[in-house]
Order: sequence, then C-alpha cells, then structure tokens
Amino acid sequence: MIDITLPDGSVRQFEAGATGYDVAASISEGLARNALAVRVDGEVRDLHRPIDQSSNLEILTWNDAGGKMAFWHSSAHLLAEALEDLYPGVKLGIGPAIENGFYYDIDLGEGRTISTDDFPVIEKKMLELAKQKSRFECRPVPKAEAVAYFTEKDDPYKLDLIDRLEDGSITFYQQGNFVDLCRGPHLPDTSPIKAVKLLNVAGAYWRGDEKNKQLTRIYGITFPKAKELTEYLEKLEEAKRRDHRKLGKELELFAFSEKVGAGLPLWLPKGTALRERLEQFMRKAQIKSGYLPVVTPHIGSKELYVTSGHYEKYGADSFQPIKTPNPGEEFFLKPMNCPHHCEIYKTKPRSYRDLPLRLAEFGTVYRYEQSGELHGLTRVRGFTQDDAHIFCRPDQVKDEFKKVIDLVLYVFRALGFEDYTAQISLRDPENKTKYIGSDENWALAENAIQEAATEKGLPTVTEYGEAAFYGPKLDFMVRDALGRKWQLGTIQVDYNLPERFELEYVAPDNSRQRPVMLHRAPFGSLERFIAVLIEHCAGNFPLWLAPEQFAILPISEKYQEYAQQVYDRLQGEELRGSIDNRDEKIGRKIRDAEISKVPYMLIVGEKEQENGQVSVRRHGEGDLGSLPVDEFITKFQSEVAALMK
Amino acid sequence: MIDITLPDGSVRQFEAGATGYDVAASISEGLARNALAVRVDGEVRDLHRPIDQSSNLEILTWNDAGGKMAFWHSSAHLLAEALEDLYPGVKLGIGPAIENGFYYDIDLGEGRTISTDDFPVIEKKMLELAKQKSRFECRPVPKAEAVAYFTEKDDPYKLDLIDRLEDGSITFYQQGNFVDLCRGPHLPDTSPIKAVKLLNVAGAYWRGDEKNKQLTRIYGITFPKAKELTEYLEKLEEAKRRDHRKLGKELELFAFSEKVGAGLPLWLPKGTALRERLEQFMRKAQIKSGYLPVVTPHIGSKELYVTSGHYEKYGADSFQPIKTPNPGEEFFLKPMNCPHHCEIYKTKPRSYRDLPLRLAEFGTVYRYEQSGELHGLTRVRGFTQDDAHIFCRPDQVKDEFKKVIDLVLYVFRALGFEDYTAQISLRDPENKTKYIGSDENWALAENAIQEAATEKGLPTVTEYGEAAFYGPKLDFMVRDALGRKWQLGTIQVDYNLPERFELEYVAPDNSRQRPVMLHRAPFGSLERFIAVLIEHCAGNFPLWLAPEQFAILPISEKYQEYAQQVYDRLQGEELRGSIDNRDEKIGRKIRDAEISKVPYMLIVGEKEQENGQVSVRRHGEGDLGSLPVDEFITKFQSEVAALMK
Repeated sequence: MIDITLPDGSVRQFEAGATGYDVAASISEGLARNALAVRVDGEVRDLHRPIDQSSNLEILTWNDAGGKMAFWHSSAHLLAEALEDLYPGVKLGIGPAIENGFYYDIDLGEGRTISTDDFPVIEKKMLELAKQKSRFECRPVPKAEAVAYFTEKDDPYKLDLIDRLEDGSITFYQQGNFVDLCRGPHLPDTSPIKAVKLLNVAGAYWRGDEKNKQLTRIYGITFPKAKELTEYLEKLEEAKRRDHRKLGKELELFAFSEKVGAGLPLWLPKGTALRERLEQFMRKAQIKSGYLPVVTPHIGSKELYVTSGHYEKYGADSFQPIKTPNPGEEFFLKPMNCPHHCEIYKTKPRSYRDLPLRLAEFGTVYRYEQSGELHGLTRVRGFTQDDAHIFCRPDQVKDEFKKVIDLVLYVFRALGFEDYTAQISLRDPENKTKYIGSDENWALAENAIQEAATEKGLPTVTEYGEAAFYGPKLDFMVRDALGRKWQLGTIQVDYNLPERFELEYVAPDNSRQRPVMLHRAPFGSLERFIAVLIEHCAGNFPLWLAPEQFAILPISEKYQEYAQQVYDRLQGEELRGSIDNRDEKIGRKIRDAEISKVPYMLIVGEKEQENGQVSVRRHGEGDLGSLPVDEFITKFQSEVAALMK
Repeated sequence: MIDITLPDGSVRQFEAGATGYDVAASISEGLARNALAVRVDGEVRDLHRPIDQSSNLEILTWNDAGGKMAFWHSSAHLLAEALEDLYPGVKLGIGPAIENGFYYDIDLGEGRTISTDDFPVIEKKMLELAKQKSRFECRPVPKAEAVAYFTEKDDPYKLDLIDRLEDGSITFYQQGNFVDLCRGPHLPDTSPIKAVKLLNVAGAYWRGDEKNKQLTRIYGITFPKAKELTEYLEKLEEAKRRDHRKLGKELELFAFSEKVGAGLPLWLPKGTALRERLEQFMRKAQIKSGYLPVVTPHIGSKELYVTSGHYEKYGADSFQPIKTPNPGEEFFLKPMNCPHHCEIYKTKPRSYRDLPLRLAEFGTVYRYEQSGELHGLTRVRGFTQDDAHIFCRPDQVKDEFKKVIDLVLYVFRALGFEDYTAQISLRDPENKTKYIGSDENWALAENAIQEAATEKGLPTVTEYGEAAFYGPKLDFMVRDALGRKWQLGTIQVDYNLPERFELEYVAPDNSRQRPVMLHRAPFGSLERFIAVLIEHCAGNFPLWLAPEQFAILPISEKYQEYAQQVYDRLQGEELRGSIDNRDEKIGRKIRDAEISKVPYMLIVGEKEQENGQVSVRRHGEGDLGSLPVDEFITKFQSEVAALMK
C-alpha cells in the first residue's frame, strides 16, 4: 500500500501501481471525467501511469497550467498525425506545447508549401482523428530500435534528436497510426480535443540555428469546448485591435525611424503630451511624498561603472564604450540611474537626521537589445524610468516600503489598474551564503517588506530564493483588461551599492554607518507602461490623461461663435479640447470624434445656444442629455477628482 | 593734398604726410589730448604715423576698443621694460593686449621665479617708467639686423619669431631703453598709463605647444585714471562673489563628480527645482505660442548624421561612435536635436495648411570639450537646449521671426535682463556663391529678419558676411548686471537640412515644395543660461523663480503653531517656503535667511498672532512693516504677475 497526499493535505491509501485516474475516481466521478494529467511529486505525468510509491499528488484538469500543457502537447501530436495523413512523406522536427497552444516544425520536402488557406482541411482532419478517441500509448524504446524506426521512416530530424539521447531514456508515444519520439506527458486519449484552430505559419531554422535548414512552423490552439475557442479568438482579435503599435500609429503617439535607429522611439506631439502628463502626475505625487527631483547626465565615465560593478557586465552584447580624444578615457551610455544618484549622495556629508533622502529622476537609460527582440514600446533600446533611490537607515526600511506601496496603489487607481498582486522575493533560506549584507539586515528588511505588504492589505505571493544577491524585493503583478499579466512597479532593497560607493551617514553616537538603498519605479519604464496602458484601456485613456478631453461640435456655421465661447470657458478651467468647425454634417463630426476616442463630445445648436447649454455625448456611452456649461464643468471635474483621490 | 573722411561723413583736406594727431587737433584740442591711436581705412595705427593718401579715418580714444587695445599693448611693453630692469637677462616671448588688459610670456632663467608677492615692486617700476613719458618709436629693420640684435641679446624666442617673418616686414618698437620686435600699434608715449595692476601669474607653453618650454605668463591691466582701476578691481571682486561655480556650491544647486566625469553636471535638488521651474515657464510660454513638445532619444544612428552632414564633422576631437554587437552598426551621442526633428517631420505627409509646424524639445545634447576648456556650467560636455525647430513656408519666415522675438523678450523681461541688442548676420554681398539656397529665398529671409527686428523695435547691429552658409540669423547679445556681454537666444534660418532630409509639403497647387527651417533657443543651453542668471542676479533669483520664496521665522517656540497656520495658508496658494523652528534667537534666524537669499522673511510673534499678520522683511531691502497674511499674498502675487506679463 502507498500513501497519496492530496493538495488539501488529506492522505489516501492505494495499492502500489494505482494511477492518477484511480485517485481522481476515488474523489469524484466528475473529477475523473475531467482529469487530463496528474502531478506526482512536482512532475506532470500521464493520468494512467502507475504510481509505485507514496507521493504528493494533484489531479490536473483544463483549469491547471499542467493540464493545458498536456492537452496542447497532445494536440501537437494530433497535428502531426493529420499532416502525415495529408502530406505523405512529411518530415517532423519538434512539436511542443507553448504558452497559448502549440506548434509543430515540419519539412514538407522540395516544392511543397502550406499556407493559411490549407488550414481548414488540416483542422478538419485533426477533428476527425480526435473523434476516433485514440489512446496515447507510451513505451520505452532501445536507442537502436528508435534509430532503426526513424531511419526506415527517413526522418533526419528525429534521428538528430535521438543522436543526443542516452540509451534507456528514450520513449515513443503512439496514437492511432502515428508514432513520435516523445517524453510526454499526454492526455489519456484524443477525445477531449473538441475545438481546433491553426493560427499561423512561419519559418523556423532547425534547432534555431540559421546555418540549418529552415522548416515550416505551424502554430495552433485547441480547446475542450467550441465556445472556449470562440472566446479565445475574440480575445485575440481584441488584443490586435488594442495593440499599442497599431493604436500608437493611429493616435499619432509615437513613431520609429530607421535613420534614428530601431528601438529608439520618437515621441510625437500627442504622445509627448500624454507622456508629460504622466510625468507631471508622478512628479506631483512624489513631491508630496517627500521625494527630491534631481537631473543627471545620460553618460558616465568608466570609473563610475567600475565602482558600481556594472563595468564587468558590459559584454560584447551591450552598447560599446564611447571613446574620446583623451587616450584611455571612456564613457558609457547609462543603463541605470543608481550610480549617478550615489554620487549625488556623496556630494556632502549626511547625518542620520537627513535620512531618508529620496532622490527622484525621470532618467532616460539605454540598453542594447538584439533587433529581433525589439517590440513596439515594450522592448526598446532607450527608455525613461520614473526612477528614485531612497537612502535610509535600516530601521526606516519598513516605513519607506509602506510609503512606496501607497504611491504605487495611488498610481494604479488613477490609471484604472484594479487587479494586482504583490510578489515578494526573499532569500533562499537553505543557502544564505550567496547573498551580501548582514544576516541581521536581511532579516530586518524581509520582515519589513512582509509586514508592510500585510499592513497595506496587499494580496501577496512569496517566492523564496528569488531575491537578488544584494537584497529582497517586491514586484507588483498587474492583470490588464484582457487578463494578461504585467510586472509593473518594483521595490528593491540594496545593500550592495552603498557598500561599493562607500556611502555613509553619521549616527547619533557619531559613528559612521552605511545607509540602505531602495530602488523603486512605479511605472518601471514610461515607454513600457504607456504600451500597457494603451492596451489596457484600448486607447480610451482615463479622462485626466486623455490627449483631447472634449470636442465641441457645432451643428452648423451659425453656432461657431457660441462654440468659441464654450471653448474659452472650458479652456479657462484647464480642460483640453478643440472645436470641429469643418463644413461637415453633425453625424460625420460625431463619428470622427468617436474614432479619435475623445471622451466628451459637446454638440451645440440653436437650443443649446439659447439656454447656455451643451448637449453632452460620452465616448462609448452615447447621449447624456443637455447640461448648462457650468454643470458640465462640475461633472467633468468631479469625475477627474474621483480618479485622483 | 589728401581727403580725410571722418566717421560722420564730413571730409577735411590735409597735406599728404599729415598724422592722425594733426586730424584730431584740427577737430578739437580735447580730442587731440585724448587721442591714443587712429583707425585708417579699417586698420588701427600709431597716432603719429604719416598718412599718404585719401582715407577714411577715426580718432581712437580710451572709449574705443581700438584705443584700449593700443593702450594695453603699450602697457605690455612697459611691463617687459620693467622686468628687464628688475630681472636682468630675462628672455621675452610674446606680449599682446587681450580683452581685459594684457600679458607677457617670459623666461626668467633657471632658478628664478615670480609670484604675486613680487607684483608691487614691478608695478612701482612700471609707473616710474611711465612717468618718463618715453615715446614709442617705430622703425623698420632688415631681417639680418633683427637676427643680429636678438642673437646679441641671446633671446631664443624672439629669434624663433623672426625666423617666421619675411625680410622687409619686420619693425622694432622702442621706448626708453627697451626695444621689442613688434608690429604695433602703440600709444604716442608712455605717459597716459597712470594706473597699473598685475593680476595673475601662470604657466604657458611657448607657442601653446606642450612639447615646448613652459614660460611664465604675467597678466596685468592698466588705466588712464586711478579711479578706473579701483572700479575695475571692485567689479572683479563682485564677479568673484557672483561666480556661479561658487554660488552654485553655496546654494547647493549643482555639483560635479570625477567618477561621473568632468563637464557633466549633477543637478542637486535645489538646482533641479530651479531648472524645472525655468523649463516649466518656457514650456507654458511655448505652448501658448503654438509649439508642440516632442521627445527624442539622446543617440542617433550613423545614417542619421550622414544624412544631416554632421557625420563628416565627427573628427578625432569629438565623442567617438558607440559600436554595438551588430557589425557596422554605429550610434552617436546627439550633438543637436535638429536631425531627430526632421525625422519627426517626415513621419507623415505635410500640407501647406499644416505649416508652420513648431516642434519643441528640452533636448540634452553632448559635445566633447577638452578638459582644459571646461568651466562650471558655461562650458560643459552635456547640456540641455530649450530647442525648437519651426518648419514653415518661405512667406511665413517674417511672422515666425516676430513671434520668436516676442517669446525671447518675454523671457528676458521675466528674468530681469533689460539691456540687449540684436545682432543680425547676413550674407557677404560680395560673395554670394558660398551660400546654399536660392537668391530669392535669401533675399526674402534677410528682409524678413530685418523687418521683424525693426517692427519689434529692437536695437540692432548688422554684420555682413557673418551668416552661416545655410542661412542668415539673429543673435541676442545681453549685457548682465556687471556689464559683461553674453550671447543668448539665437534664431537661425536654415535652407540646408530641409534639402538634405528632402523635407516637403504639398502646396496649394499640389506641387511639392521645400519648407524653410528655423532653429531657435531663447535660453540657448539651460546650463549656460542658469550660470549667466546666477551671476546676473548674484543668486537673488526673481521672486517667481527663487527656490525658497519665503521663510517664516517664529520669535519663539510659542508661535510655532501660528507659524504653521501661516505656512499652510501660503502653501495653499502655491508659495514655496519653510518655517525656521530652530531654537535660535530671531536675529540669528534673520541673518541665516539673508545669507540663503530668501526673498521674503515673515517674522511672527505675539502681535502678529493676535492680529493675524506677518511682519515682512525683504531680502536686501529690510523691514517692510506688518501686513495681514491675505494682503501679503496679494502683494506677493502681484509682484510675480508684474514680471510675467
């Protein structure tokens, strides 16, 4: 008999050789029906594989990442089976599950190609095969037999893979007539695969090496229910509509130029207005929280980075040093602002009474990324951090953490991010030697972070061993409107730089002490943050941030004068907007304002002019009726105030 | 007989061989007495040199730059004469007049040195020699004779100079027993030199080449009246007191760090506050004037600078290119913002209706300067321009010029610069081929600039041949509180970059036309502007700009609560300041606030608390009596408004 410990801590006894399915069935019929795979002592396995010894066990369904992984991995095999059927002689590379779906790399042979036009036929074949409810059978194969099998089949890719495997470690999986070299795990059979969509076809070099042959990579996704596929495709469409690269172009926020260089955004006037309002918002919030803005150059001499320790890390994959006429003199584009801020700390002696010292800078930093890695504003070569460094005493860490959490939550609220968790990264308690800083200070800082998060009521996840070698940290993980997770807002404790820069303060007993340093950036990178924000709100920025907050739409030329009066009144209250004086029908003016995502459209005609009113239309909501101009302003201002409180 | 045309256009007749002195005497006895030299057809000459032909002639006195130049050049000879007397065997290098005074480079010989302690003796000797009223006699000398003379005297430096001169072009000047190789011009005699001050002693390589021997350079200045020397020295002292490097440190505005790098300022919190207020002020004024802020990266690829033409100019004396892991890829630190702005212009098609397009950026640029050339904030390696580029049609140049002039004058007024002239730089009318752009456009732009300046009532100086090859320009020359001139605010027309970047707009007739580009920067460099501003106002910034606008000084602890009430009231009105709650006597608190140059000190005690008042003290002015808090706020705000209107 073996003991099976379930996730809730309960223990059940089974005979050795029982399977995950047996365990699921012992819990409930429903669970057994929905079970896709099983996690045994941390490893995902086939549901029907016998369990030989006492273990921790978790039944995996479609709701678990491990369950999805098995589902999509099996779907990749299904795709390969369909392709062998439809394209006899096709050679197969690898076919893994990925974050959303799966792919298979194939070699169709000279003269044959696949395009998206061919997808419906393949999808149909896959569904046909799935319905056959073929079992995924696993069997160990001696290396010689594996080689013989794929030699017979004349598949050079599988042979290349086998070549790198040790005899005794090789397994084949078979469903129906299809056999693949595979470690698994897989579904019990093909029947749960009820909805299939092939998404994309692309080229991919064998083993990712451009010296090898380019294979055809087919991406797909599958679901246990047709409805889920429909929802997924809708979400995919929505993500495309919201793509910040697309909206950034349509709303004229930013652009790229080949001559300036890839990954170096040019901020156009409307994007700059947005960016400056975000900066201004953060600047105000920070000044209120006791931060002191500073400005430092975008380069630093080699000596600065030798001191900070970054110099050693400037490898061949970085921006190279900037030489000067002075032999031996070298500057670097700054990859972060902290070394400069340490030098500001050192411009005068500091006392314990001067701490915390909070130096803030919208610092633009440069980091080289391979051009293939660049992506809109989320992966660039130059970006601006809403950076700050808090120099404080060890006993101030908790209070400072709480204040930073307040600031981050204020920012999230004002920008409409409501779904977040705090991920706390602590030392590996088993391996304390790889960290710098005293045990006492680590304990102090780790407790401070955890207490601060608890006292602020943050939902937290704690990861042991995920701390940097120089200190523990807290990251905010934010879920956007499409349910995607983004890491925004990091607070990092640092014992290393104060040591390297020999930072000091005079303690009450006149001794010299090292301050602790906190790095923090609520937005992180302004560029990336704006990308996330654009996609989160689909370009419908929060009212206070919208490039244009209102558009006045006169019904005809006759009302242009009244429109101007309304405009002056609104501008006097610092509302941003414009008048659409084009010679167009009002329907067209409304349509164009809706496309530009202007939050408020104010229509003025005969009635409005007579009564000193505006007819208010809200983007995405429609007609809100007529209001006196003053009342509209009050409504507008209280809407903004509600976001900013 | 010859015709002598005077500056007022009048013509007088003299016999050939008459001298400048004769002309001066014919005008007035006073002029003859004050005459120091004469300018004949543009060339400054000795007053007593015979004039052989009809010429334009100007008598030069102490009030003319040319007169001062002759005065100080002669003073340099006087210094050399004194040194030969006091230090027998001294070898002489060169001894020119400079902007303020003169210097002489000398070689004292092994083991002898001169320090400022020796200055009084030398000055006394110079005055003694001056009183002898020795005439400066000029005579041409054959090269062989010149060589013989200085070989005899064993002076290697003069021999080195003669070596490079052509026979027939060599003259000696002699006063008393002192003979020098010299082209002149000089005073008639030594007697006008009535006041002498040696200022400084420094090392200087012969011919400025560090491979040569280092000579001793003695700086001095002389005046025709003792009173003028006193005034000059007072001004020098005042300039030292106002030195922005000194005040920048005292007021904690900025700092330099060796590790960050020479010439790369770190803006400390107080300096950043000042800088951000200046930026904010300019940003507002610019937005009101129709500028669109943009943001561009601090680097650009090689291709950008090949297109702009800057690439050819990146010589060995510049910051060198930034290489990347991608072979052949090179970036440069941007030395100006215009190429990036041209690329923004090109992000979409432009119509004549879209112009003028005014793109503004506080763009930080980097230019390498030799470390010896660096000076506080006035000469740095990285600085932020309040840059903008106006893309307009040729017929819009005048209007745009007028608008920029308005903006510059608004800035000058708000910052207390009241003494300025506009220097207009036009083409050399004799040599039109060295300029790019059509004749028609040049005429248009040059007229536009001149008319704009006239219509705006600017005092102007026009310089022909001083235009850049790519367009005419207007520079504002500002005189600061110490009478020193600074070039601030340039407006430059540019026909070159639109051509190189192939910028276009669609004209009303649907043809494609080149826009004209205007570069303009009212501050120029923020760093340099702040340096000038600090020295101009001696750290007493205009009220709206002062880092701390008020300090509330409670007479004792009893009034801290009332002080806090007053503080909250002022802060609510966005006045910036602090409370001095130290346990110090009120006299000490006032003294410290005066040292920190806080404009308003608000003293609160029993009487003020009872009446809801503050006792107001203005920095540099003293007690202004008691005022209700509200009245103080009104007074404060109207003082600010008066500067900003």
